[in-house]
Amino acid sequence: MNFYVTILGSGAATPTLGRHCSGQVVNINGYRMIVDCGESTQNQLRATRQKMQSFGTIFISHLHGDHMFGLPGLLASMHLGGRIEPVEVFAPRGLKRALDVIFEVSDTHLGYPLTIHELDFDEPTEIFSNNKCKVTAIPLLHSVPCYGYRFEEVALGPSLQPGVRDRYQLTPNEIAFIKKGNDLTLADGTVIPNSQLTRPPRRPLSYAYCCDTAYTETILPAIQGVDLLCLESTFDHSRADLAEQRRHCTAYQAAQMARKAEAKKLLLTHFSARYKIIEELMDEARKVFPNVVAAQDGEVINVV
Amino acid sequence: MNFYVTILGSGAATPTLGRHCSGQVVNINGYRMIVDCGESTQNQLRATRQKMQSFGTIFISHLHGDHMFGLPGLLASMHLGGRIEPVEVFAPRGLKRALDVIFEVSDTHLGYPLTIHELDFDEPTEIFSNNKCKVTAIPLLHSVPCYGYRFEEVALGPSLQPGVRDRYQLTPNEIAFIKKGNDLTLADGTVIPNSQLTRPPRRPLSYAYCCDTAYTETILPAIQGVDLLCLESTFDHSRADLAEQRRHCTAYQAAQMARKAEAKKLLLTHFSARYKIIEELMDEARKVFPNVVAAQDGEVINVV
Repeated sequence: MNFYVTILGSGAATPTLGRHCSGQVVNINGYRMIVDCGESTQNQLRATRQKMQSFGTIFISHLHGDHMFGLPGLLASMHLGGRIEPVEVFAPRGLKRALDVIFEVSDTHLGYPLTIHELDFDEPTEIFSNNKCKVTAIPLLHSVPCYGYRFEEVALGPSLQPGVRDRYQLTPNEIAFIKKGNDLTLADGTVIPNSQLTRPPRRPLSYAYCCDTAYTETILPAIQGVDLLCLESTFDHSRADLAEQRRHCTAYQAAQMARKAEAKKLLLTHFSARYKIIEELMDEARKVFPNVVAAQDGEVINVV
Repeated sequence: MNFYVTILGSGAATPTLGRHCSGQVVNINGYRMIVDCGESTQNQLRATRQKMQSFGTIFISHLHGDHMFGLPGLLASMHLGGRIEPVEVFAPRGLKRALDVIFEVSDTHLGYPLTIHELDFDEPTEIFSNNKCKVTAIPLLHSVPCYGYRFEEVALGPSLQPGVRDRYQLTPNEIAFIKKGNDLTLADGTVIPNSQLTRPPRRPLSYAYCCDTAYTETILPAIQGVDLLCLESTFDHSRADLAEQRRHCTAYQAAQMARKAEAKKLLLTHFSARYKIIEELMDEARKVFPNVVAAQDGEVINVV
């Protein structure tokens, strides 16, 4: 299992000395995706020793600057680094028009195919899949069109029981054959049933990133039971009115949503610059949902 | 005297771990201006402990991303910080159209007046002045329209000779009167001529920032005799062909220009990411122009 999230930026609205604007890397068994791309995302990829060219898929929650002002620079640097492999970006409507103008006036001519998938729907929708993961976009409740993303491992196949490989001196072809569910016939004609050779796959894990959003129960079905749930907690609950007005969450509200979604673990992020120390926000959340961690730039959070 | 340059970013094209994209702060006797605004400029302002809201004037050399992709974030953060004072940006044609679209799709509505002055001329032209400095834009030789900027102190007034203030117990009004060139009449009717009270002002200092540009002698009259000359040296001279092709300078060429312009000191910047150690570039320049310093992110360079 190799499913984890690297925090590139955990601040809200404007960067501070300790927190960059929103950005994460989601790594699912070696497939790596960028989620949100605030200013300095490319710098943060370097700071966390991640190869820019290893990314081909970028998900943008919404078009507020702190979630996407790093995209032109990242895409341009990928080109300057000699990239030819395609890049796909998923984002709400409007990004393509902005990038077209930005690249025109900055005389940027990408040497690789860039596809912008503009999202425009009201229900959770699967938007991406490959042999390692699938991604569902979830409409959130923010002041502009905004999507959360749920990342799931694809259903894994069965694995061999311990010792089986050596006991029967299995070849790679035989292992593949058995993993497909077949029995094994030995040289003497004995048939070993598949149930004695394999064990069922572990449950596929899931991660949901929901930022920015006001408190809403509409999204609960789409994030139900996720192993790791990243929610924004821009404010503490004494500022619930401000949060409501700006369509953000308080730490308390995020914890409520995590509890109602029966998430396994809660990851808080998108902290307002007014909080120099975020323990207060963490304590507020813990009272409602104990298994909570705070995003910190440069840190790696395992999904379980 | 208080005329210095703070380096925010000294890298070319893409940021590295040690060098951000182009950006500087020019401080002339307390009046502070931003020159170029690559991605992460707002982060670098924070890192160098400069108050974002203290800037009202921004000069952009050209619209390549590494010189201006930090502008939307900086302008948005100024707004989020509650700014109401106006901001003026000087840049080649095209910036206004890009910012209009970026701010539209990112739902950014600045709470202060933003004026974009789009430059479009072929000769050095004075574009800005106040009671502390004047700024001349100088067309450079790059692959897109690009301007260097020459910053000059305004001619300073005379100052009092040492001891004069105490000797005659001068009031502030009397000091202002004398600094305007008037003689002083004492209570007993004695007239002290102005020449015995004041000393001539020192020579106004000047700084020129020319980045990006290929080697060109066309700009020499406009940068003649500056105290500090910042030139780009993207490449070493073994890559002169590449520099020519991309309309950049080698360190050797920058030093040649500094010598021909009779600059007092040369500041090299905009180093290609291929140079992990830039001593080689410095040595190359020193052979032609000895008084050379290298830009390093976060450092402060005095104009004299």
